[in-house]
Amino acid sequence: MPLANSAFANKPQAQPPVRFCDVVRQAGATDYEALFKASLHRLHEEQRYRVFADIERIAGGYPNAVWHSATGPRNIVLWCSNDYLGMSQNASVVGAMVETAKRMGTGAGGTRNIGGTNHPLVGLEAELADLHDKKAALVFTSGYVSNQTGISTIGKLLPGCLILSDASNHNSMIEGIHQSSCDKQIFRHNDLDHLEQLLGAAGRQRPKLIVFESLYSMDGDIAPIAEICDLAERYGAMTYCDEVHAVGMYGPRGGGISEQLGLSARIDVIEGTLAKAFGCLGGYIAGSAALVDAVRSHAPGFIFTTALPPAVCAAATAAIRHLKTSGRERSRHQNRVARLKWMLDVHGLPQLRNGSHIVPVPVGDAKTCKAVSDYLLNDFGIYIQPINYPTVPRGTERLRITPTPLHTDEHIDQLMAALSSAWRRFEL
Amino acid sequence: MPLANSAFANKPQAQPPVRFCDVVRQAGATDYEALFKASLHRLHEEQRYRVFADIERIAGGYPNAVWHSATGPRNIVLWCSNDYLGMSQNASVVGAMVETAKRMGTGAGGTRNIGGTNHPLVGLEAELADLHDKKAALVFTSGYVSNQTGISTIGKLLPGCLILSDASNHNSMIEGIHQSSCDKQIFRHNDLDHLEQLLGAAGRQRPKLIVFESLYSMDGDIAPIAEICDLAERYGAMTYCDEVHAVGMYGPRGGGISEQLGLSARIDVIEGTLAKAFGCLGGYIAGSAALVDAVRSHAPGFIFTTALPPAVCAAATAAIRHLKTSGRERSRHQNRVARLKWMLDVHGLPQLRNGSHIVPVPVGDAKTCKAVSDYLLNDFGIYIQPINYPTVPRGTERLRITPTPLHTDEHIDQLMAALSSAWRRFEL
Repeated sequence: MPLANSAFANKPQAQPPVRFCDVVRQAGATDYEALFKASLHRLHEEQRYRVFADIERIAGGYPNAVWHSATGPRNIVLWCSNDYLGMSQNASVVGAMVETAKRMGTGAGGTRNIGGTNHPLVGLEAELADLHDKKAALVFTSGYVSNQTGISTIGKLLPGCLILSDASNHNSMIEGIHQSSCDKQIFRHNDLDHLEQLLGAAGRQRPKLIVFESLYSMDGDIAPIAEICDLAERYGAMTYCDEVHAVGMYGPRGGGISEQLGLSARIDVIEGTLAKAFGCLGGYIAGSAALVDAVRSHAPGFIFTTALPPAVCAAATAAIRHLKTSGRERSRHQNRVARLKWMLDVHGLPQLRNGSHIVPVPVGDAKTCKAVSDYLLNDFGIYIQPINYPTVPRGTERLRITPTPLHTDEHIDQLMAALSSAWRRFEL
Repeated sequence: MPLANSAFANKPQAQPPVRFCDVVRQAGATDYEALFKASLHRLHEEQRYRVFADIERIAGGYPNAVWHSATGPRNIVLWCSNDYLGMSQNASVVGAMVETAKRMGTGAGGTRNIGGTNHPLVGLEAELADLHDKKAALVFTSGYVSNQTGISTIGKLLPGCLILSDASNHNSMIEGIHQSSCDKQIFRHNDLDHLEQLLGAAGRQRPKLIVFESLYSMDGDIAPIAEICDLAERYGAMTYCDEVHAVGMYGPRGGGISEQLGLSARIDVIEGTLAKAFGCLGGYIAGSAALVDAVRSHAPGFIFTTALPPAVCAAATAAIRHLKTSGRERSRHQNRVARLKWMLDVHGLPQLRNGSHIVPVPVGDAKTCKAVSDYLLNDFGIYIQPINYPTVPRGTERLRITPTPLHTDEHIDQLMAALSSAWRRFEL
């Protein structure tokens, strides 16, 4: 597929004519501009250069949105958003943001310590502690930061700690482990035997932290949480579970997979996000009072950064409260997921099977994956971002489809027609 | 001053009875709860345990706010906010947040690559590039993240890079340098001779990145930017300047100290925040198209995190636009700063002299500094957070006062009376 036909080529990038290593040799190591250009050239060569689509979402119209393309605005349907339940346009959530912005202004005005601890943020942390049935919770500016500064701080507070990390953990967790300066060992994805082997080798007396996700976002598979907790208890390890792709969507009150399985009390730290099912921005950890207070008191990525705006906190609190009592969104969500998976089968289209709401449709090649995505957007107004390396391993490139409660049968039918056409066109 | 009298003691913390090293020895290294408690105990012992004041700001009433104290809500005056110009309650800024939340919802719904690139965010980046007269700008979820992932990514893209870092740089810059895995050398604060010595020793051929702030937030002193640029050019180094405490407040259009001094074009990367003078949340870098695109394409703390909400982006854009054309806030701000500094002299109260809007009043002892702050809040309803170690070196503990355009002569008079009373009471 020629590049000129790419829907994402609305911001064309000049490609430097030389390779990275040639630049360093020819231009000298201090020709900084040439070095940055060469790093971009390398991405183009490897089909990894990303151009972002400029999207304008429509409150009340989700999953419909406007795409600001090179040729002007076009109506599209979002099929890859992590606003999994459409809560970012829920009337009570938008209302809370609007009311709080009018009443308290737009920003927090400082770090948590220097005037930034706003009343809605204190309320949000209480709401989150209750959601996970923990003594305390701590809010960060993002889920990424929660993992990065949360894991690194916990690791640093445990002298000689060994961190045991699932091989498929998110980049934010990997960065947090790296920054902790702790020894780490990676266990094969969801492999309990391997985890037990590493726990046994570490010995009973050494502090150990098991870091994993409840629901892995790219394959949509779910961790054996109960068995991991069994091992943690047997070998005296702490558990840290990332629930960002589950909170709001699983469990009777939206407390995630851990709540659904009745395991919250056995997990030491539950980490979550306010930016996906809760439709806002920010991340958090929930745990014991001492653990949360210790992270609050020592984590640089928490201490030295401006607090979340009151209006964002109030909106997130409204979303959590709504989903604590309303099961309607969760039920409709699962219904839509089931229908989409069934329809893929009916149309003879492939999918990676899993027990979650994430529907990965394998393509298997970076260039084709991008071309299919471009074709869907250009010819059908359907937006599904290609997922390529390094987000997933090479050879497992895919479309990652995320149905929401707001996708209708008609949306699904249109998607099937578009995918079927793409599969024929690209001979998949 | 007894702890029971502390205004900040509204969330009393049980202090564990043993020391950290004793816990590890006595309880075993895997009594995690005891380890976290011990880490808190150590902070209490060192007078470094922080309790956050729960503040409710009032749009239209700034600097007045409500403090949710242990005994109920109380009216207070904020004197330590980094909402330096009060823009978080500017009508056009609040209006932009409200209008955009109603129209587009509360959240971005995904990473920049996966559906999160929203139209107001694209507009914000164009506005920021224009503000600093650079080809491009890139927005992060916070100023902290801009520095952390920005510096580390730039460092990694320059093979063999040496980072030269001012001794007083902010924690976010230190973390960014650490994560870059580059060699680093620290030059004495604002010491050009030392910087030149290190540049000379590194040699002309080695990539070098000078990382510094335009305005240092705790002392309020300003870097010799022109001379640093001279050295960078002489020795072939790149320059990265953190302007978070200056953007919006200095320069004819609010482009910071670099704009005020006509030096923007000589600085390779200008980093700023949307959370202080612009009254919102988020951070950014501005620089050449290739540099910004390279960071966009490689920085994990940018790639793998949810984008800022459209409503926050629209509010920040409104603040930047307002301050590009209106000099009223800047002029009134400088007037208030000058009056406060003069009044401190009139009342025989100490201050660290500087050429900026930050007014540090030295106390010199952690316990007294906290006690003075508590006294001001309890007895006068004046909120100025104590600044203790590790934010500043031991022995330089201080009150850090930040006057805004909205502080009246009466506010200043009340502050003088309160400070004078405190200085008598604590025999300073």
